[in-house]
Amino acid sequence: MGSGAFTLALALALALVTYVIPEERKCLLSGSWRSDTGCRMVVSFLRKDGSFSGSYLPGPAAGGSEILTSPLEGTQQDAGLVPQPTFSFTVRWQLRDSETARMTAFLGQCYVGTNGEETLHALWLLREAANSPAEDWKATRIGTSIFTRIK
Amino acid sequence: MGSGAFTLALALALALVTYVIPEERKCLLSGSWRSDTGCRMVVSFLRKDGSFSGSYLPGPAAGGSEILTSPLEGTQQDAGLVPQPTFSFTVRWQLRDSETARMTAFLGQCYVGTNGEETLHALWLLREAANSPAEDWKATRIGTSIFTRIK
Amino acid sequence: MGSGAFTLALALALALVTYVIPEERKCLLSGSWRSDTGCRMVVSFLRKDGSFSGSYLPGPAAGGSEILTSPLEGTQQDAGLVPQPTFSFTVRWQLRDSETARMTAFLGQCYVGTNGEETLHALWLLREAANSPAEDWKATRIGTSIFTRIK
Amino acid sequence: MGSGAFTLALALALALVTYVIPEERKCLLSGSWRSDTGCRMVVSFLRKDGSFSGSYLPGPAAGGSEILTSPLEGTQQDAGLVPQPTFSFTVRWQLRDSETARMTAFLGQCYVGTNGEETLHALWLLREAANSPAEDWKATRIGTSIFTRIK
Repeated sequence: MGSGAFTLALALALALVTYVIPEERKCLLSGSWRSDTGCRMVVSFLRKDGSFSGSYLPGPAAGGSEILTSPLEGTQQDAGLVPQPTFSFTVRWQLRDSETARMTAFLGQCYVGTNGEETLHALWLLREAANSPAEDWKATRIGTSIFTRIK
Repeated sequence: MGSGAFTLALALALALVTYVIPEERKCLLSGSWRSDTGCRMVVSFLRKDGSFSGSYLPGPAAGGSEILTSPLEGTQQDAGLVPQPTFSFTVRWQLRDSETARMTAFLGQCYVGTNGEETLHALWLLREAANSPAEDWKATRIGTSIFTRIK
Repeated sequence: MGSGAFTLALALALALVTYVIPEERKCLLSGSWRSDTGCRMVVSFLRKDGSFSGSYLPGPAAGGSEILTSPLEGTQQDAGLVPQPTFSFTVRWQLRDSETARMTAFLGQCYVGTNGEETLHALWLLREAANSPAEDWKATRIGTSIFTRIK
Repeated sequence: MGSGAFTLALALALALVTYVIPEERKCLLSGSWRSDTGCRMVVSFLRKDGSFSGSYLPGPAAGGSEILTSPLEGTQQDAGLVPQPTFSFTVRWQLRDSETARMTAFLGQCYVGTNGEETLHALWLLREAANSPAEDWKATRIGTSIFTRIK
């Protein structure tokens, strides 16, 4: 094997390594996640266009007895192509004894650590239905959530 | 027909009127809307489960030359059953010259005025993709939008 | 008078005009303001360093019967030098029957219209005291207010 | 001393202990704090009415080279009386090379752990001066900070 062929082979090998490493570190939202407030989120179905479905199980601090497992729908940016995609999802809360509708919109990004661990950083808005525009001012709460993958 | 029967018929008629009027004033998100900052939103497809699709056309103040018509996906509460439903939708911005991904999550409620006019009151979060968790703190902007229906 | 002296005089005159026009349109927060939700705010004391004191009188939609006139403290950017200053102020709510402390932080900017009318655009965070970090997630509401000057 | 008197004395002693321990665990904002993003905050002067002054030193992620040590002014609820007071403060950013004014309003609460450790949980709004109401929509960022005391 000549020196030119060897260089080519080396270049190809390096290219493969370069390709493989980020591939392993890409973040996909499918799977089970735990929030820093003890809630659990399961993304059970991630489609090719980045849209996903799942469910949200509130933790004890969220008033665990009142809130039931609630459906979520969302979308992640360029599923499988971007290493640290932004995402958005909405939870429509199923409440045991309440007639007031509640929805939470999460907006965030998935970061991949040097060890390959994925972390979701999100800000959220939580809205309760109001009776009129005059009461709209107090309808919305805000906060942050950090999710880590449950293995 | 006796006076008692007449009173009953009147009561029934009134009850029907009371029932019919709010029926006509229910808010559905389908259609064209204009925001208080001059943007235009078209919800072209509202499904029975409340999910909807459409597009968002930014106004001049939003940097009109940079931003292209962008797709939106969302959901409204109990489409057709609740007079003033809450809703949530996400816009994935299509940018002419930028490689930085941007997403806006809107969370709001549709209010119906005494004249039947619908108004959407929403808070939104806008996120630009960041490079790392250390830069995450500056990734999110917040604001409000009010939309009125374009006839 | 030579041509050079005339040019100088003209330049001075123009400089005066340029100076005088924005001078008239500068925004100071002192005075009485009404919010878009019907609340009234009085900034009674604006100091040279931009700090100010006043009081906030909630409107009917804010639960008028519960909330008493509440003190506010804040600061505006470069009082008297910047035509459209940013500002920040905090209201410590005085409540009739509640033991839960509440505070609202407003952050905004004063805009001066072509007609000289001042408008305050602000985002606010409203916090109720929580019992523990586990309940902190639901402590904060968010919204916007627009104030116009009461003459 | 009879058994009844002894029981009374014991009860009184216990009551005193119960009283004294939370007394020691009250949170005061004076001192030095480090944020979860590596910023440092010094509250150098806490007055009897709860108002305080200090300075904010940004960390590397905040663009350390651009931002200088910046003054802060704020207020804490019922200084010295409430164990876990809410607070609010504003930082007026001193920037090396920028003519755009920036202000951050923090709103939060000090929590005291079972070990007596104080933690500040805050949401903040960061505003850059805009040129006109039409550009106001993009002026405000939002996020959270958690501060722990530097010993």
